[in-house]
Amino acid sequence: MAPQKGNLMTFRKDIKVVDATIRDGGLCNNFYFTDEFIRDLYQTNLEAGVDYMEFGYKASKDLFDPAEFGKWKFCHDEDIYDIVGENDTDMKIAVMADVGRTNYKRDIVERSNSPIDLVRVATYINTIPSAIEMIEHCAKMGYETTCNIMAISKARKEDLLEALEMIGQSSANAVYLVDSYGSLYPEEIRVLSEMYMEKMDKYGKQVGIHAHNNQMLAFANTIEACAMGVSMLDATMNGMGRGAGNCMLEQLLGFLKNPNYHMTPVLRFLEKHMDKLREEGVQWGYNSAYLLTGRLNMHPRSAISFTKGKRHDYARFYLDLDQE
Amino acid sequence: MAPQKGNLMTFRKDIKVVDATIRDGGLCNNFYFTDEFIRDLYQTNLEAGVDYMEFGYKASKDLFDPAEFGKWKFCHDEDIYDIVGENDTDMKIAVMADVGRTNYKRDIVERSNSPIDLVRVATYINTIPSAIEMIEHCAKMGYETTCNIMAISKARKEDLLEALEMIGQSSANAVYLVDSYGSLYPEEIRVLSEMYMEKMDKYGKQVGIHAHNNQMLAFANTIEACAMGVSMLDATMNGMGRGAGNCMLEQLLGFLKNPNYHMTPVLRFLEKHMDKLREEGVQWGYNSAYLLTGRLNMHPRSAISFTKGKRHDYARFYLDLDQE
Repeated sequence: MAPQKGNLMTFRKDIKVVDATIRDGGLCNNFYFTDEFIRDLYQTNLEAGVDYMEFGYKASKDLFDPAEFGKWKFCHDEDIYDIVGENDTDMKIAVMADVGRTNYKRDIVERSNSPIDLVRVATYINTIPSAIEMIEHCAKMGYETTCNIMAISKARKEDLLEALEMIGQSSANAVYLVDSYGSLYPEEIRVLSEMYMEKMDKYGKQVGIHAHNNQMLAFANTIEACAMGVSMLDATMNGMGRGAGNCMLEQLLGFLKNPNYHMTPVLRFLEKHMDKLREEGVQWGYNSAYLLTGRLNMHPRSAISFTKGKRHDYARFYLDLDQE
Repeated sequence: MAPQKGNLMTFRKDIKVVDATIRDGGLCNNFYFTDEFIRDLYQTNLEAGVDYMEFGYKASKDLFDPAEFGKWKFCHDEDIYDIVGENDTDMKIAVMADVGRTNYKRDIVERSNSPIDLVRVATYINTIPSAIEMIEHCAKMGYETTCNIMAISKARKEDLLEALEMIGQSSANAVYLVDSYGSLYPEEIRVLSEMYMEKMDKYGKQVGIHAHNNQMLAFANTIEACAMGVSMLDATMNGMGRGAGNCMLEQLLGFLKNPNYHMTPVLRFLEKHMDKLREEGVQWGYNSAYLLTGRLNMHPRSAISFTKGKRHDYARFYLDLDQE
């Protein structure tokens, strides 16, 4: 195993914190955030020293009915401008674009005409060529890009290595290690981080991590990847995100030693907005059902449904999962 | 760093799982468990393959008023016999004895007349000689013993090394790495585990870990210590324990590969008992207040009070903590 990068007393200048609250959190409430929430989130991220704020998806309205989702499912440039103005700050604006769900040739225009700085292209291992096509379009339009390979706990190592090689040769600025099912243990994260780092070092690209909390390991896995040299770190307010949610921004900022990062604005945001969202019935976060899908390396959809149904029959649920 | 012991495909025969639900969980409800709860817990632990079940404290009734606590604060032998009979099983029975709070010469009798197998002596770093005196008494009475050094995140390394040396030379069978404040990160746990292992290997003793979940790292820290060779692993049902609680037994059994361990009985216990305890108002588990005391390496008492008071003003709480 490669030696650790950095230690608990110092900080690494290459680290970038990415707030993905709207994007991953939006999966919990169909992106129905109030404008006040989004404006406060933008202001909080600025004060907290967050490096990138992800606004949501650039989903195609040909595929998704705008009546069924809040506006951050689509992330029109004008909606972002409405929040950030010219965004004359050090914080960059990101969006996510799913392979096959984004009409990028129509909806992703020249960066000089857009508030967006970074397009994160989300793909499964079997659609890497389509992802790279989208990345090349975005790069040509002037954007920073990342390639976020999802569900890697189901991918074969040889496919993953091939995908990393292809991304290495593309215009992508970084590749993300994404533990979609929250099934990876820290020792697996270390091995994967080393694999990603080795490939990307060769091409001078960064590696990022996007962890899920199904086994209560999102924070642990994020800081383990970080220790291995991974430098783009995703987190969300109070971990808001699909199912068991993500690494919590308050945990991550509390861990990082860069004096540019500040935890207190995040705590104020939690007080004002996140506890309220929970009271309103928006659900996310660890429970025993997510532990079970995570342990079985399965998509959390059945655990989400178990949780929504207020079920408590974990043993029966586990038996059913195991027979799937 | 020493190489990892074991891997994710195999299992280590030296690993012992210790259920500490009554003892650490009892701190959440003053040890007022129903007999049905305790009987079901005993049965569940047997079915799950748990190696040691800790019943509670051997606290002195001279110091603690029996009217203020349930019986597992005191763990009379007859109360344990009442649950386990002769305990003609492979699972051993443990109790905890705090230095200075146990009248061990009176209350800890010959093992042959007791249902207890293991006495875990809990001590701070500055009372090691008293702990060893108690350990020697218990060893002479025929018990297995461990020395659980609490709050080590506040201890100086040279004191810790000296303490480990003293315990190494004592009759203790094992020493515990105890993260009382839930403030240690996995990379610190690895360093400490290596230090403990090196000292104890010399004396042929085991090392254990008792983690707390203040920074949501109890499970992560437990499996990291395990990977370094630590072999006595504490966990509790759904993590029930003081403040943010402990490593969850269901997580730990889901992680370990020994076919003797079974998760389903634990899931059934969660359904029947743990969700109910929460509904009745017993509180434990991670929240943002524990993150803050954990991060500041402080005792969780102020976070427990914050939580009980249903406060949400995290930023103010953080400021107050930081000024203490």
